[in-house]
Amino acid sequence: MRGKNAPNALDLIRRKRDRKRLRPTEIDWLVQAYTRGDMPDYQMAALLMAIVWRGMDAAETVALTLAMLHSGVELRARESINPVADKHSTGGVGDKVTLAVAPLVAACGLPMAKMTGRGLGHTGGTVDKLESITGLRMALSRDEFLGLVRRHGLALSAQSSELAPADGKMYALRDVTATIDSIPLIAASIMSKKLAVGPSHLVLDVKVGSGAFMKTEAEARRLAQTMVRIGTDAGVRTLAVLTSMDQPLGRTVGNALELAEALAILRGEGPADVTALCLHETATLLVLAGLVPNEEAGHARAERSVADGSGLAKLAEVIAAQGGDARQIEDPARLPQAPYREMIAAPRSGYITRMDAERIGMAAVRLGAGRMKKGDAIDHAVGLVLQAKAGEWLKAGAPLVEVHAREAAQVASVRAELLSAYTWGEEAPAQPPLLLGSVG
Amino acid sequence: MRGKNAPNALDLIRRKRDRKRLRPTEIDWLVQAYTRGDMPDYQMAALLMAIVWRGMDAAETVALTLAMLHSGVELRARESINPVADKHSTGGVGDKVTLAVAPLVAACGLPMAKMTGRGLGHTGGTVDKLESITGLRMALSRDEFLGLVRRHGLALSAQSSELAPADGKMYALRDVTATIDSIPLIAASIMSKKLAVGPSHLVLDVKVGSGAFMKTEAEARRLAQTMVRIGTDAGVRTLAVLTSMDQPLGRTVGNALELAEALAILRGEGPADVTALCLHETATLLVLAGLVPNEEAGHARAERSVADGSGLAKLAEVIAAQGGDARQIEDPARLPQAPYREMIAAPRSGYITRMDAERIGMAAVRLGAGRMKKGDAIDHAVGLVLQAKAGEWLKAGAPLVEVHAREAAQVASVRAELLSAYTWGEEAPAQPPLLLGSVG
Repeated sequence: MRGKNAPNALDLIRRKRDRKRLRPTEIDWLVQAYTRGDMPDYQMAALLMAIVWRGMDAAETVALTLAMLHSGVELRARESINPVADKHSTGGVGDKVTLAVAPLVAACGLPMAKMTGRGLGHTGGTVDKLESITGLRMALSRDEFLGLVRRHGLALSAQSSELAPADGKMYALRDVTATIDSIPLIAASIMSKKLAVGPSHLVLDVKVGSGAFMKTEAEARRLAQTMVRIGTDAGVRTLAVLTSMDQPLGRTVGNALELAEALAILRGEGPADVTALCLHETATLLVLAGLVPNEEAGHARAERSVADGSGLAKLAEVIAAQGGDARQIEDPARLPQAPYREMIAAPRSGYITRMDAERIGMAAVRLGAGRMKKGDAIDHAVGLVLQAKAGEWLKAGAPLVEVHAREAAQVASVRAELLSAYTWGEEAPAQPPLLLGSVG
Repeated sequence: MRGKNAPNALDLIRRKRDRKRLRPTEIDWLVQAYTRGDMPDYQMAALLMAIVWRGMDAAETVALTLAMLHSGVELRARESINPVADKHSTGGVGDKVTLAVAPLVAACGLPMAKMTGRGLGHTGGTVDKLESITGLRMALSRDEFLGLVRRHGLALSAQSSELAPADGKMYALRDVTATIDSIPLIAASIMSKKLAVGPSHLVLDVKVGSGAFMKTEAEARRLAQTMVRIGTDAGVRTLAVLTSMDQPLGRTVGNALELAEALAILRGEGPADVTALCLHETATLLVLAGLVPNEEAGHARAERSVADGSGLAKLAEVIAAQGGDARQIEDPARLPQAPYREMIAAPRSGYITRMDAERIGMAAVRLGAGRMKKGDAIDHAVGLVLQAKAGEWLKAGAPLVEVHAREAAQVASVRAELLSAYTWGEEAPAQPPLLLGSVG
């Protein structure tokens, strides 16, 4: 017979199913047992579906995050570097903000310890975009990672499997059991990896809209509040911004294309929407960490790092330190180029009233810019260059979107899907703001 | 890429999670894929929890039952024997009704093809009770089983694993993932096994109360309606009776003890409550199959089979035909006897106002009469003889319950639990009826 006080997976699944609270010690026991392989996948799958059903309260969600954090190595960055910042985006289409914000923040004197992920489905990943650079090593050891942050104020690392391994194992199971869609599970997954790095300050960019995981502002706000609470509880100054992902961000979708656009932002030549967002997030981090007294001063400081080229120089410096070819940062023409380009023309005259970010993202995935499942190879050169965005008026036949592909047949295979992503109208649509609010 | 029309487990889990209906073809695909081993346990576990959450409508539940039925062999009893009846109880404590009803019905001229299960937890199983008989073979081949029914009008077989194997595999998974408690899953599990035998007429005894799986009459009624609908849909004349399981049925709990009590019923010497229920269920089956015009005539016919000894003779005949020692039927003193007996006395004077059937059942399990998990060995001789039932007045020190055990230490280990199952009062409690209603 089992001891009365030893947790038991079946009882805990039953309790969650029956809407009872799980205690922190019980959640920790479940996560460690699962990570060690002592709890079978089928019990964790049943528990995860029960959590999707019943939810988790704030204390349970914090406990889940800490249990996942404690399943692996903790870098404790802020114990040796302070302040040290991090920035996370929940993911979207054309989201190259991290590529510009990280070097801008570092150039402003706030160290950034940036560990980042790969893309999946219609959303891209910062690791994939950076891997457009020849020679860049992103699989850094702990010491190397923290050493780079200390010396250069910035390191760009791929997510280490040593950090929060419970998350990797649980995410893989969630992916095949329809248990991804749960705010506590999403929040714990993101925050366990952030806490494992151990920043002192953290800005979360929670994307909202058709191209984002959170389709409504209410959902996004709940996710933001949950993550801010977890971060704050763990002693990290945490702030979330809610930003629109109803259409792709900026003018490019695809790895090298997005990196090139981020370099343009760092040179002060980027599109207005995404540039504004980069400056805003940079300023937010500087204010949060107390390097500037207010948002305005932060904005001015960020703009100076663009104007004086120090943001771009910082990126080149770190890329070189990580074995990458820094000449590609100075001359983006050296980045991978797709051998075949074709312009798709506007099928009619009118205003673009809506661009479906998810469909555009999926068209890029089909070109090879992203992956349908973990481990799929990707093509860094291919992608889309958006010639017009929602709110613009085009004449029939005018350039709409340039497809960068391996070959002509690929363009034919995505043309219909791409065109179906655009909605047209006779009147200029209302332009919703990119920045929807903040939580913190 | 998958074809657009091929079902895919992940999509189907997601659909059920999102409260969408699953089509019969999709449910069949899931059940066959799982039974073949092409769908992993973790996906079935997530789906089962989503079904516990979202439920299944009548069409889905019928489809699930048929899919489980089609996962294995079908005996199609009614194609060669007609009419041919079956009777099922959802399980309780001290429920020896099947042991008396099956031979009574057969003695009245209605063939019974009885396939039956083992006990688990506080509820006993008819196979275990019958295995108190020396030499009795219950693992019958299909031909043997149907041949016995044809020749003797009765066969008593253990549930064959060839019938509805999907149920066996799914039940084992439900047992370890807290997904037992779902009316559509319970109904499909029971009915797939009943339909696999293929009776023409079926009476379901749905137990309600503290000692039953269904704790409330409303739940029991829903389960009964669901099962009757499945049976009727499949062309089986099906009727369900709801009966109370708030206290143990009859005076004995334990395998040989319950068999001996069933033999007493067949001799016309059984306790009033369980005898009345046996006569009622026998009459119900006879009316359902059209052998008698009404309940009254059925009752008279059943009583005659007791009075003339034909019920008892039928049981002895079939036991002998299946290799069992029929002398044990004629002389119950030859059944296994526990070496140690001890009377527990009433701790106070007063009316017994309540007897917790589940606790009494669990005390019997701890003596060795039942099993906590599948495959546990059981002791056929041990159990409890209840000297008084709810509603009776006892003087302090009067006999309350006689424990039949292997040794004195066992009695000590269950004494406190047993005594805690009794609630006492100064006034005679209202006696709820044993028969609560019927559905059909």
